[in-house]
Amino acid sequence: MTFAQTLAARAEQIDARLANLFVAGPAAASPARLRDAMRHALLGGGKRLRPLLVLETAKLFNVAAEDALATASAVECIHCYSLAHDDLPAMDNDEIRRGRPTVWKAFDEWTAVLAGDGLLTLAFEILADPATNPDPVVRSELVLLLASASGAAGMVGGQALDLAWEKLDHNAPPTPEDIRQLQSMKTGALISCACEMGAVLGRANEDARRAIRAYGSALGYAFQIADDLLDAEGDPAITGKAVAKDKALGKATLVDLWGPQRCRDVLAELQADCRNALAPFGASATTLLAAAEFVATRDR
Amino acid sequence: MTFAQTLAARAEQIDARLANLFVAGPAAASPARLRDAMRHALLGGGKRLRPLLVLETAKLFNVAAEDALATASAVECIHCYSLAHDDLPAMDNDEIRRGRPTVWKAFDEWTAVLAGDGLLTLAFEILADPATNPDPVVRSELVLLLASASGAAGMVGGQALDLAWEKLDHNAPPTPEDIRQLQSMKTGALISCACEMGAVLGRANEDARRAIRAYGSALGYAFQIADDLLDAEGDPAITGKAVAKDKALGKATLVDLWGPQRCRDVLAELQADCRNALAPFGASATTLLAAAEFVATRDR
Repeated sequence: MTFAQTLAARAEQIDARLANLFVAGPAAASPARLRDAMRHALLGGGKRLRPLLVLETAKLFNVAAEDALATASAVECIHCYSLAHDDLPAMDNDEIRRGRPTVWKAFDEWTAVLAGDGLLTLAFEILADPATNPDPVVRSELVLLLASASGAAGMVGGQALDLAWEKLDHNAPPTPEDIRQLQSMKTGALISCACEMGAVLGRANEDARRAIRAYGSALGYAFQIADDLLDAEGDPAITGKAVAKDKALGKATLVDLWGPQRCRDVLAELQADCRNALAPFGASATTLLAAAEFVATRDR
Repeated sequence: MTFAQTLAARAEQIDARLANLFVAGPAAASPARLRDAMRHALLGGGKRLRPLLVLETAKLFNVAAEDALATASAVECIHCYSLAHDDLPAMDNDEIRRGRPTVWKAFDEWTAVLAGDGLLTLAFEILADPATNPDPVVRSELVLLLASASGAAGMVGGQALDLAWEKLDHNAPPTPEDIRQLQSMKTGALISCACEMGAVLGRANEDARRAIRAYGSALGYAFQIADDLLDAEGDPAITGKAVAKDKALGKATLVDLWGPQRCRDVLAELQADCRNALAPFGASATTLLAAAEFVATRDR
């Protein structure tokens, strides 16, 4: 099975779990318009990379997919809420995502703000639910990791830095270190967190946790560089996005500062970092290794 | 000491703890503009009623204020994030709150959205932190309670219902039951949750938890009826708000449907409910009783 096939099979399993959030539980009990907007945001056909990372790292520690799915769905709630808010007119002003209208375009702005708030809160409600994991130590640690990765010193902070460069700081072009920090907060933190949450579910020891963190961190960085390369060079017929959209928005990327060749060299180094980090896990890490390859070489 | 004096003294203690969030921890580590906006949203001089309820219910079960302050600050993060989002142009479009510009007016819309997201996430990061409570069972339960009260089936859902009536459903006037449900989700759930979180910190038994829930639920309802009465009849020189603002926005209130006298009768019944619920706690519940009196008779 190729990694793309694995990802597609996992996505089906994850989509079923996400859809189920609207059949029972707090999302099901919410007002109809809000529920529909949350569903629109969450069930929009994403790759489901972050939940896959939860499932696959958990599997390294012998946790069955069934016992990691709730945690995986919480991470996707965070990812999708951030897209619903980032797409708002006051933020990135995007009308189309994955070929469908964005949440504010399909509903309206206030509904999109509240749908994002609802999904954000739902992520923590899922993690703190005893049905997600019977051990309260695990549940608390999952909440702490996810809040830390996605909050003001993580994903939300990265988005704030990004918008500040784009909308306010035109006269002070960012350095490669600025971009690296921004990207590591905006994208890397949640990807790395997804990996570490799998290790928490598996009660990994400190050495294994450290290895998974190293993998997650290299993977998150690689994801972002590949994204920048796709924005600069990708085929819009395949990516489904306008090429050079970042440039048009005045966003500085590492491709601008380093050129594509150096970016590809760094990508190769990061893949080596991923391989080294996963070496202790031997053959059981095959899918995570393939994920690193996929992230670095994806064409969409 | 009158209740107003108790509230002011507690507010000072709570404000100090909230200010400290920007000295150390995730909010301190966030980008400057985001941090400033979160501080603006959180340190805007609120009454701090919800955190006081956490401290006072915890005290019923012999939990020192110092050991309940972190939990109290998390509840206030949720309250203040909801105000920052509710004030947005696409929502209630408010420019002034408590005599200061709202977050979007003082900064801009994207900063206000992200500051709200940051505060929302921070609340759960605080609750899951072992420094908040050494017992992971308590931490998980606090997260679950707060997420449930503030999410799509609670506060966020109530705001969605409110805006739907105001902006979309002009032809279908709400019934008293509709208004009751909306208000119980939008305002009551978080007030009641604040009380119950104090009981969780104090490891209250099920009977005591039930009594505290009954108190919190009556208190939350009374708070909202008093708010509607103030909107209809309050002195703008004292409330600091325009009179009949709800009416101008097309919001239906119980005062419209029931008239002020029936509202005052229900308020009196709710105060009796609060007294009954607190009876088992005797003299130690004096401050919580005074809070019920304060909520029902406040003039601002």
